[in-house]
Amino acid sequence: MLSIAEIDALDCGAFVAHFGGVFEHSPWVAERAWASRPFGSLTALHDAMAQAAVREASEDEQLALLRAHPDLAGRAAIAGEVTVESKGEQASAGLDRLTAEEMARFTSLNDAYRTRFGFPFIMAVRHADKFRILDSFARRVKNPPGAEKQTALAEVAKIAWMRLLDMVVPNPTGRLTTHVLDTATGRPASGMRLFLHAVDGSERRLLGEFVTNADGRLDAPALSGAELKAGTYELEFLAGAYFSATCQPTAAPSFLDRIPLRFAIGNPEQHYHVPLLVSPWSYSTYRGS
Amino acid sequence: MLSIAEIDALDCGAFVAHFGGVFEHSPWVAERAWASRPFGSLTALHDAMAQAAVREASEDEQLALLRAHPDLAGRAAIAGEVTVESKGEQASAGLDRLTAEEMARFTSLNDAYRTRFGFPFIMAVRHADKFRILDSFARRVKNPPGAEKQTALAEVAKIAWMRLLDMVVPNPTGRLTTHVLDTATGRPASGMRLFLHAVDGSERRLLGEFVTNADGRLDAPALSGAELKAGTYELEFLAGAYFSATCQPTAAPSFLDRIPLRFAIGNPEQHYHVPLLVSPWSYSTYRGS
Amino acid sequence: MLSIAEIDALDCGAFVAHFGGVFEHSPWVAERAWASRPFGSLTALHDAMAQAAVREASEDEQLALLRAHPDLAGRAAIAGEVTVESKGEQASAGLDRLTAEEMARFTSLNDAYRTRFGFPFIMAVRHADKFRILDSFARRVKNPPGAEKQTALAEVAKIAWMRLLDMVVPNPTGRLTTHVLDTATGRPASGMRLFLHAVDGSERRLLGEFVTNADGRLDAPALSGAELKAGTYELEFLAGAYFSATCQPTAAPSFLDRIPLRFAIGNPEQHYHVPLLVSPWSYSTYRGS
Amino acid sequence: MLSIAEIDALDCGAFVAHFGGVFEHSPWVAERAWASRPFGSLTALHDAMAQAAVREASEDEQLALLRAHPDLAGRAAIAGEVTVESKGEQASAGLDRLTAEEMARFTSLNDAYRTRFGFPFIMAVRHADKFRILDSFARRVKNPPGAEKQTALAEVAKIAWMRLLDMVVPNPTGRLTTHVLDTATGRPASGMRLFLHAVDGSERRLLGEFVTNADGRLDAPALSGAELKAGTYELEFLAGAYFSATCQPTAAPSFLDRIPLRFAIGNPEQHYHVPLLVSPWSYSTYRGS
Repeated sequence: MLSIAEIDALDCGAFVAHFGGVFEHSPWVAERAWASRPFGSLTALHDAMAQAAVREASEDEQLALLRAHPDLAGRAAIAGEVTVESKGEQASAGLDRLTAEEMARFTSLNDAYRTRFGFPFIMAVRHADKFRILDSFARRVKNPPGAEKQTALAEVAKIAWMRLLDMVVPNPTGRLTTHVLDTATGRPASGMRLFLHAVDGSERRLLGEFVTNADGRLDAPALSGAELKAGTYELEFLAGAYFSATCQPTAAPSFLDRIPLRFAIGNPEQHYHVPLLVSPWSYSTYRGS
Repeated sequence: MLSIAEIDALDCGAFVAHFGGVFEHSPWVAERAWASRPFGSLTALHDAMAQAAVREASEDEQLALLRAHPDLAGRAAIAGEVTVESKGEQASAGLDRLTAEEMARFTSLNDAYRTRFGFPFIMAVRHADKFRILDSFARRVKNPPGAEKQTALAEVAKIAWMRLLDMVVPNPTGRLTTHVLDTATGRPASGMRLFLHAVDGSERRLLGEFVTNADGRLDAPALSGAELKAGTYELEFLAGAYFSATCQPTAAPSFLDRIPLRFAIGNPEQHYHVPLLVSPWSYSTYRGS
Repeated sequence: MLSIAEIDALDCGAFVAHFGGVFEHSPWVAERAWASRPFGSLTALHDAMAQAAVREASEDEQLALLRAHPDLAGRAAIAGEVTVESKGEQASAGLDRLTAEEMARFTSLNDAYRTRFGFPFIMAVRHADKFRILDSFARRVKNPPGAEKQTALAEVAKIAWMRLLDMVVPNPTGRLTTHVLDTATGRPASGMRLFLHAVDGSERRLLGEFVTNADGRLDAPALSGAELKAGTYELEFLAGAYFSATCQPTAAPSFLDRIPLRFAIGNPEQHYHVPLLVSPWSYSTYRGS
Repeated sequence: MLSIAEIDALDCGAFVAHFGGVFEHSPWVAERAWASRPFGSLTALHDAMAQAAVREASEDEQLALLRAHPDLAGRAAIAGEVTVESKGEQASAGLDRLTAEEMARFTSLNDAYRTRFGFPFIMAVRHADKFRILDSFARRVKNPPGAEKQTALAEVAKIAWMRLLDMVVPNPTGRLTTHVLDTATGRPASGMRLFLHAVDGSERRLLGEFVTNADGRLDAPALSGAELKAGTYELEFLAGAYFSATCQPTAAPSFLDRIPLRFAIGNPEQHYHVPLLVSPWSYSTYRGS
């Protein structure tokens, strides 16, 4: 893992040696992005690469970039002819453990897709489950070609982002905050207990326990700086306890008790504000600011 | 477990023998409610008892009813002088396994509460965790006496409801439905996959898998009739797969992927409509109709 | 209009002379509240009076307070035997201009209500329209007596609050803020234009025009200090222009264009945060903090 | 105004004579769309034309279509060299009454835009105000060329839709419905009064008065069939009256009283479901199904 300062000090050759594989088999992307240094942040590094690869490349270069990708779950993957990164990503989505039937479906979709669009189906599959991949595949194969090319390039940029997350230490500028508003009384929900969990598949690991203050907020971010890593989290609000304590009428048992909000932090350099607006019978959340 | 038809056929003595303990040490409640038969439903049976116990009883009778309850985690519970129902309820909330410190806190709150209000602290503790009980206790002890008496009577009615759920077969009139609306595009979210789980503490058990139809709904209720039991459920929506498939821009990894909505069905004779309004960055839910 | 500092300097006689009519024909409320000075704010002054009148008064005193109120649209109002404040309030709701039929309905409801509860129907009618009064009247007459007495006392406290608003200069601590979040993109909506209007019946008067900044907020409160008066306001967001400018797909014409949020500021000493969460097809708002 | 049946009976020459101007100076769009008849609905007629003009036309044809449009508020408009439709649309947005300064801004944006993209700035301006046009113009001139071309084509399709609305009698398949859910109590809001208004600029015209039934819905659509015309509407909910009547605690005056939901019905052949989810301190709405 390199720090941003270390990256900003690399010469072009070292930079390309390091980041040439971030865009599959396309070191020219890193080469062009190098000119934009100093980057100053992981976010800016990725922006520079996406700019070079997607927004400023010619039509032909974009097409070449798309064609440099292997089929998902395809022959190249089976034959081991893909980048190490691709191989790991496909495995993390379970694509190395398909049944014969699933494999046949992938092969058939791959062929149809490549025939229609002239490049392979590309999707950021890390963290994606089989459903997500197959549902997307089945719908995207029907897209108009112009729109599908944009979608494919957007997926390429996402794959690059996830690869960079493994290679670069982000700046410790991010934080996770929350706020609980009681929409039945129009007041901040103070004294509501909540837990923060890291989520990994079906496993949850408790990271912290908090109680909202008089303004319905936490006294400090739930996570910040180096603690805030990209990944999936769950905030679990003990709403039932709060409504009991504030004597708001509920059913028996109450409709809402422990409310889980599950979300991913994709960019650890950013602020994630994840509030809960809640009454005994309804709630909403959103990525706020 | 008796059916409603069987209950409606009971004479007064048999009815009181059966339901005399639903309101703690207060068989007179069952006796008066008997006059309202035929009940026709579990909901109506409970209404009749709550009517007799809470809405039509005199001030003195209400006070006697409240005073018939044991202290939570108190001496009577320890000495075994409470009804079997009370004992089981207290155990289900973990009140039979308190540390010495927690026990001391309960004792101190029990004394303060009883001194201030003239009756013991009453709370429907089944399904409640320690946090819920102690947070409520600490706030309710400060309530104005008139308001707290109403709260205590409401808890008595909830305890009765949960006891009746164990004794009566509800009418198979309930159902659980959902609806997914994509608020970013203003259209029903069709083709979204979702799972239904039964939740028991930290355990989830898969009950079914569904895909939304063209109107964003399921073709049939997720649960209905005798399958629909009181308890905690989780609907888990594969929103990330849906947004990928419909080519809506998301982050990498996407902010929302699998969205859990956890809620309790308290009354299996009713319709629970639990919709999801969702964009790639926000969602809400509510008990609808 | 007295300032808080002037009020805090009044002796008991002067205070009662001034505020004795805030609770209808019940100067004892002012007399008892005087002991709690210095109040320091309009909010605290009202709290002290409500405490004396409602939360600390005996059952008999509460009943006497309720009985000191005139019937709405009743004989005393017609005969002019009510306080000047009552007369003005009833006129502001149009109760001095009822048709014979409406008058007959009020008379019949007044009689039924007084017979059932032993005190007259009381409602804070300033700013209320005929629908609000008659709908409430028709439902409240069916309330259980205990609950209805609490409702009546709450209305008495609201009447007192609205009377105090006419008599006291509030502290300039209040402010009105907003925040626009684009839930389709998960980002603050920057560059959205909005107008603030004062609303008086069907009339709107433009108070200001604003544009949201990079964080989706205004650079300063839309209203603050002495400008912030109790009353009805409308924030009008030019959402259609924002979605056009940000190239988000909408219908023709777009489903949402100018979004009005209409709300009342009841307490000019408080902070009103009224955000808009919006996509091209949905929005929500709430009183935030 | 022709009916769908009449349109479906037109021969190619008559069809083009009638609809040749729907896409500005591009009768070939109508000519190609004619082959898709019978259309069966206004929606399908527009789809067929948009398909021919946008989704199936070649890159050169798309460019020619864009270039056939006049500048907004430009020299051609002043010199009267635009289609009658264009002239009326520009007038309806007030573009024929610009100040010299505004005209200069349009001229400068028009030049910058045409230089950057090679075609004029196109926007569906009917129903749009000056703010919407200028805010969009200032942002769209900075778009990447590929994205901006898609945006321009989408605007062309919107202009065509609004022109067709003036020429064709839609099928009477549309309806407007609503539903009010009380999120503080988790129940349908029954007995809430609401008004439906047609909105024309700053004028409102009352179309109907309704009261929600036991399920929080209206007994019949608020509008349906031929009554449902494209245009702007406002549903005005008397939420304050409802919360008073149901004895839910509110402020004095209450934060929410009459809640206006303003929205446009763009396609009178469709179902518009516009619900209100409301507590005394919050509400949301969305286009539902």
